Amino acid sequence: MPAVTYEHIKTCKQSGARLGKVHTPHGTFETPIFMPVGTLATVKTMSPDELIEMNAQIILSNTYHLWLRPGEDIIEEAGGLHAFMNWDRPILTDSGGFQVFSLSDLRNITEEGVQFRNHLSGEKLFLTPEKSMQIQNALGPDIMMAFDECPPYPAEHSYMKASVERTSRWAERCLKAHGRDDQGLFGIVQGGEYADLRKQSAKDLTSLDFPGYAIGGLSVGEPKDMMNRVLEETTPYLPDDKPRYLMGVGSADSLIDGAIRGIDMFDCVLPTRIARNGTLMTSSGRLVVRNAKFARDFRPLDENCSCKVCASYSRAYIRHLIKSNETLGLRLCSYHNLHFLLTLMENVRQAIREDRLLDFREAFFESYGFNKADAKNF
Amino acid sequence: MPAVTYEHIKTCKQSGARLGKVHTPHGTFETPIFMPVGTLATVKTMSPDELIEMNAQIILSNTYHLWLRPGEDIIEEAGGLHAFMNWDRPILTDSGGFQVFSLSDLRNITEEGVQFRNHLSGEKLFLTPEKSMQIQNALGPDIMMAFDECPPYPAEHSYMKASVERTSRWAERCLKAHGRDDQGLFGIVQGGEYADLRKQSAKDLTSLDFPGYAIGGLSVGEPKDMMNRVLEETTPYLPDDKPRYLMGVGSADSLIDGAIRGIDMFDCVLPTRIARNGTLMTSSGRLVVRNAKFARDFRPLDENCSCKVCASYSRAYIRHLIKSNETLGLRLCSYHNLHFLLTLMENVRQAIREDRLLDFREAFFESYGFNKADAKNF
Repeated sequence: MPAVTYEHIKTCKQSGARLGKVHTPHGTFETPIFMPVGTLATVKTMSPDELIEMNAQIILSNTYHLWLRPGEDIIEEAGGLHAFMNWDRPILTDSGGFQVFSLSDLRNITEEGVQFRNHLSGEKLFLTPEKSMQIQNALGPDIMMAFDECPPYPAEHSYMKASVERTSRWAERCLKAHGRDDQGLFGIVQGGEYADLRKQSAKDLTSLDFPGYAIGGLSVGEPKDMMNRVLEETTPYLPDDKPRYLMGVGSADSLIDGAIRGIDMFDCVLPTRIARNGTLMTSSGRLVVRNAKFARDFRPLDENCSCKVCASYSRAYIRHLIKSNETLGLRLCSYHNLHFLLTLMENVRQAIREDRLLDFREAFFESYGFNKADAKNF
Repeated sequence: MPAVTYEHIKTCKQSGARLGKVHTPHGTFETPIFMPVGTLATVKTMSPDELIEMNAQIILSNTYHLWLRPGEDIIEEAGGLHAFMNWDRPILTDSGGFQVFSLSDLRNITEEGVQFRNHLSGEKLFLTPEKSMQIQNALGPDIMMAFDECPPYPAEHSYMKASVERTSRWAERCLKAHGRDDQGLFGIVQGGEYADLRKQSAKDLTSLDFPGYAIGGLSVGEPKDMMNRVLEETTPYLPDDKPRYLMGVGSADSLIDGAIRGIDMFDCVLPTRIARNGTLMTSSGRLVVRNAKFARDFRPLDENCSCKVCASYSRAYIRHLIKSNETLGLRLCSYHNLHFLLTLMENVRQAIREDRLLDFREAFFESYGFNKADAKNF
């Protein structure tokens, strides 16, 4: 029995979205799901208690960041990431590939791996598929990701083709280097905007029989409709009996549109990042609580929200905290936004269960404002 | 019946410390007590839930800061400070006097009040006894403080005498301007290091019959033994049937030594301020969790502590969070330190109840390290 398995519950008759469960060594999570990101072994500003309270079922953490700080050896000695950060539910770590390409300078890609400079110390480091596996085996998440190349958008077809082929060879090396059978290793489909390369990448990877597949290289600056097209061109080549994870996507419209295209898992720093600037996701669209018009607004952030922040605090108070750089302001906004996306996915699952996800999408898009002319700003 | 009353329960036969209760419109708190400071209507990094969890019975907030941000009118419109910040237990606000003298530039003191520059905007402002009362009446705390002058340490006897006399005249104006009978106004005894002036200040203020008295102008740079001497020279002139509040004092030794000298209430930003730098109060003294020696130390911050931080997180994890500037690190350290001082005062109350506060002091000082040669650094 693999460490990570997918249980299909039903397919939405209206939309084709999948309802399922993923079983892991630290328990089961329901899909489609949003996974809060805890880059440095903490979901920014939140405590594990609060994540449990809002029913986060799985969180992410980050190989690249934990390798640099505090070092995977310390986390291993602590008994693994779960014990280190006091989180007993499932954890997924990404491979470090994305961060090597997005954060570091002077990277040099070879067949062997990627040489780059540590973005903190400037020190030269070398990350390879084998090294990424060694780090993730030490960290001990339930789900780990293969080490891939993440080319920028846009990239030439010729470059992307070479990159996809290297990512496939790296995926094979990851499988060989992966040393623990209590952790599930997912492959990552790349190929940018090119349908033929997405197909090639998916076929390469599925031939290696991973327990799950991610779709990477999206939400990197391409137009929104391109993401949906790429999903439609990729998922047909992924097996039905494995979970599908769309990496780095966390805007509400993309979560719904991804679920409709058969995606089971999503993650993004968006809800916590915009929260720290006082931007909230609400049932009627984004709300920038710093704005002067909220100074005397004693309503909750979202009048239709059931979270404890909306039950206890006003826009005026939260605006005051954010304007004064008070930590509690960051906490309350982060809590609300994470709760918003987790609740959204709960509602998406319920809509699939009741074969009405397209109806749900229409009502949600209308209320949130995605149907407006400036929807690209949402 | 005054809004704020003191109920004396017993006097420690060994030390002379007082055990009591203070009754306010938002409930009762036990004394001696430590009051966490929520300068800007939030105890830095903490939520009200967490303060309740650690049994904070009363918190402080700040007239000067709330006047500047968000403005007392907004808080009044919100229904007062309790509603604004979601805190139903007692609140004490200080008068703004200390902040005008410690934070602002170019202050100019006249009989009428103090002209100074807003430390945020540079705008010229004028704070008077009447203005401080108007702001505190709008904020609506249970206990408000008279507007006083806080001279620097050291100050000449002649300057201090004139200042004490002005503070007494200001206290009278505060009483006249105070417009709500559901808030208790405390007078503040000044006089610096001078016994005759402390006596004069105490006599002036007690003749005005406030429901409580504070001792101000200590913990401003003077030697530690001077504080104890000043307390001994001041409390004989304060009535037994009113609470006594030593302002701005929060180091563990001073809390115990203050209680022994008949002090009932204490406040200080110390536990939260040092927490944000990763410095912890523990049963065996201060612990600087940033230090490299804690990188692989998987023990709790304090092995004798009952707080939820010590139950769930290691020094190694908290060090990682603090080194990485993660908000959760500030939260966990702040929680632990506040819990430490609140628990210390619970233990002090129990020792008074059992007539053994001097024994408690000796054991605590020994364990914490206050008896060491470098104790002044604690």
